[in-house]
Amino acid sequence: MTTAATTATETIDTSKIKPVNPPHRLLMAPGPVNVDPRVLTAMSKPTVGQFDPYMFKVMGEVQAMFRTIFKTSNKQTMVVDGTSRSAIEAALVSVLAPGDPVLVCVAGRFGMLLKEIAERAGADVHVIERPWGEVFTLAEIEEAIKSVRPKLVATVQGDTSTTMCQPLEGLGDICHRYGALLYTDATASLVGNDMQADAWGLDIVTTGMQKCLGGPSGSAPITVSDRAVEVINERRSIEAGVANAGEIAPDADRIHSNYFDMAQIFDYWGPRHLNHHTEATHALYAVHEAARIVCEEGIDNAIARHALNGRAMSAAIEGMGLKLYGDQSHRMNDVVGVIIPDGVDDAAIRAQLLNDFSVEIASSFGPLKGTIWRIGVMGVNARKDAVLTCAAALGNVLERNGVKVSTDKGIEAALEVYGE
Amino acid sequence: MTTAATTATETIDTSKIKPVNPPHRLLMAPGPVNVDPRVLTAMSKPTVGQFDPYMFKVMGEVQAMFRTIFKTSNKQTMVVDGTSRSAIEAALVSVLAPGDPVLVCVAGRFGMLLKEIAERAGADVHVIERPWGEVFTLAEIEEAIKSVRPKLVATVQGDTSTTMCQPLEGLGDICHRYGALLYTDATASLVGNDMQADAWGLDIVTTGMQKCLGGPSGSAPITVSDRAVEVINERRSIEAGVANAGEIAPDADRIHSNYFDMAQIFDYWGPRHLNHHTEATHALYAVHEAARIVCEEGIDNAIARHALNGRAMSAAIEGMGLKLYGDQSHRMNDVVGVIIPDGVDDAAIRAQLLNDFSVEIASSFGPLKGTIWRIGVMGVNARKDAVLTCAAALGNVLERNGVKVSTDKGIEAALEVYGE
Repeated sequence: MTTAATTATETIDTSKIKPVNPPHRLLMAPGPVNVDPRVLTAMSKPTVGQFDPYMFKVMGEVQAMFRTIFKTSNKQTMVVDGTSRSAIEAALVSVLAPGDPVLVCVAGRFGMLLKEIAERAGADVHVIERPWGEVFTLAEIEEAIKSVRPKLVATVQGDTSTTMCQPLEGLGDICHRYGALLYTDATASLVGNDMQADAWGLDIVTTGMQKCLGGPSGSAPITVSDRAVEVINERRSIEAGVANAGEIAPDADRIHSNYFDMAQIFDYWGPRHLNHHTEATHALYAVHEAARIVCEEGIDNAIARHALNGRAMSAAIEGMGLKLYGDQSHRMNDVVGVIIPDGVDDAAIRAQLLNDFSVEIASSFGPLKGTIWRIGVMGVNARKDAVLTCAAALGNVLERNGVKVSTDKGIEAALEVYGE
Repeated sequence: MTTAATTATETIDTSKIKPVNPPHRLLMAPGPVNVDPRVLTAMSKPTVGQFDPYMFKVMGEVQAMFRTIFKTSNKQTMVVDGTSRSAIEAALVSVLAPGDPVLVCVAGRFGMLLKEIAERAGADVHVIERPWGEVFTLAEIEEAIKSVRPKLVATVQGDTSTTMCQPLEGLGDICHRYGALLYTDATASLVGNDMQADAWGLDIVTTGMQKCLGGPSGSAPITVSDRAVEVINERRSIEAGVANAGEIAPDADRIHSNYFDMAQIFDYWGPRHLNHHTEATHALYAVHEAARIVCEEGIDNAIARHALNGRAMSAAIEGMGLKLYGDQSHRMNDVVGVIIPDGVDDAAIRAQLLNDFSVEIASSFGPLKGTIWRIGVMGVNARKDAVLTCAAALGNVLERNGVKVSTDKGIEAALEVYGE
């Protein structure tokens, strides 16, 4: 990664900085992806105040649409004002008081992140691990639950670092049988893969906007079951500056973050609209339009579209003679892992792809850094021309770097998936 | 406040929700204010990836411009991805380890918020208080420092709940003499009032976009002195999923939040660009353009403009026969407090102002709820026609509600301030 821009800040004449004028990229990394033009337009509508009746209408509609998208009837469905991991931290710090036992399922970077956030929250953290590229069976999660007896089981549905999608159907029942709540991070999986919050018994699900929702990073939708709301509200407090007499909970009980106090966020989104943060108006407009696009298409159609395009991208990769990474029967629909051929310079290939074709793909983290490429087929980019363009560009760059691939065959294989 | 919209979510048909189409408001509450149209345009530019060289250029320019705006040479000047209070929490939780003594100066709701956030961070919190509507002398803050010997002194420059602006010049030297760091929350004051981070010895200053910067809520600029960086980096750690071998600090030392770990945010904005969150691209474009507008005008010219328009608004209020709230010699340039005349229904007047003129003003919190109105003269709304329109509309609504005011005299008094 270049350091030039950062170093250059020291000598920038701030009176001469030009307006932002970004290059046109085709963003085929697993997020952020290109924001849908409809969302960009929505974002630039006029500002209203945070207590404007119109703002309440937009908030209410966002809540309703995310109930549809999460497949839930949870009253407490809303948006945390921050990037994807802000909602993760809000979920964990609001449920887990210091010392509370939590079981974290780790099979990639984002499982490790859940572990770290839970540790920082002071929880009693227990971990089960699987090698990167695999998923857990429900049976082994149940075994661990039996032994740990956690307050919360924390999972990642789609861990983009490995491209794997953890099966969750039935896990809620298991957790509830042992008195545990179930959390899942669906940042990179929601709208690209099936996710049934209510039917699968998920108590908290969080996501981000910059993946399959095709919106801008910076807002993090969350849904919370009544069961989890009850646990969170045990530590509910009202900020002294906005409370009525006698409403403030004792200091000792409070959730250990103000910004991530979900009980206060419920009250902000609820009928009293108790001031907490100042809702990010324009980001919320973006969330609204991104959700509208999904609801218009229909959530199951959107998932099917991601699956189709993910299959086409996989076919292109294999068709051109490259190898796919990980257990394909559990691959996320919206991310394809590609094993980087021996002797190929990961960074050089990606730089050339960006410079010549303006196409961005990513490598991964930890043990997979420089070992696999990750291609995202997400949001507005889950479409035929994006898949074919990315495949053709990658094939061409590899060929020019002396890697033996057959780009034509890759494109043909993808077209076959599309039935053409 | 209406609850209708929220209740209605239960029955919304999500396939029939219309695109956002907000009413045209003149937002004269103390934030959020109307986002400058230039900023709205910048926000809708094409997305780039978070590690794109162009993204690094935008980040570097944002850092440089905020050094100009904060009047600092602090290397660690950047944006936290969240609303104003996200940067407040990031500052406090990154400096204060559990048990660390902190002195919080409380003379309004936002001082109370600093106290609450520090308490939740587990700090040993000591408070000095002044009645709402007053400010502290540096001598009384020094007395408290002598007795508490805090690691950090936390202050609010402009507490919008009271419209007061706390003098800070010289306070840095006092704090440093006793080995304390100095933090100030300049959410509502920056760009509207003078703020000299380096000259006044401020170690951390945070702000928001939706006030005098004329941008959208959701991004929170912050600047951190080398002295404070050193304290924060004592607990620096690198996320396991992105660390090289041996780089992870011991668990016990970590800052008690991942999202608000400023050491990790420094590393994300620094030459290694170590992945932390996914920077909110489009919000950053907005921050860039809002900062460009201030740098183009010149920070001191922008402050003078806020002062002029604040004086005009005050003159209009007094001219029409209403009373100003609080110690006027310490009033924030950009917020005017108006004592609500006896017997006047606060909520009814504000609702009529919104419904008839589409002008929004605010009441306040705590002891001042329903007692004062707060009129913001901020960002793009710190201009003559906005001030006159707000004054004329308020005067008219009051007259129609039987309150004896002389709107014409108010407008005349404002025009005199403008030299007309």
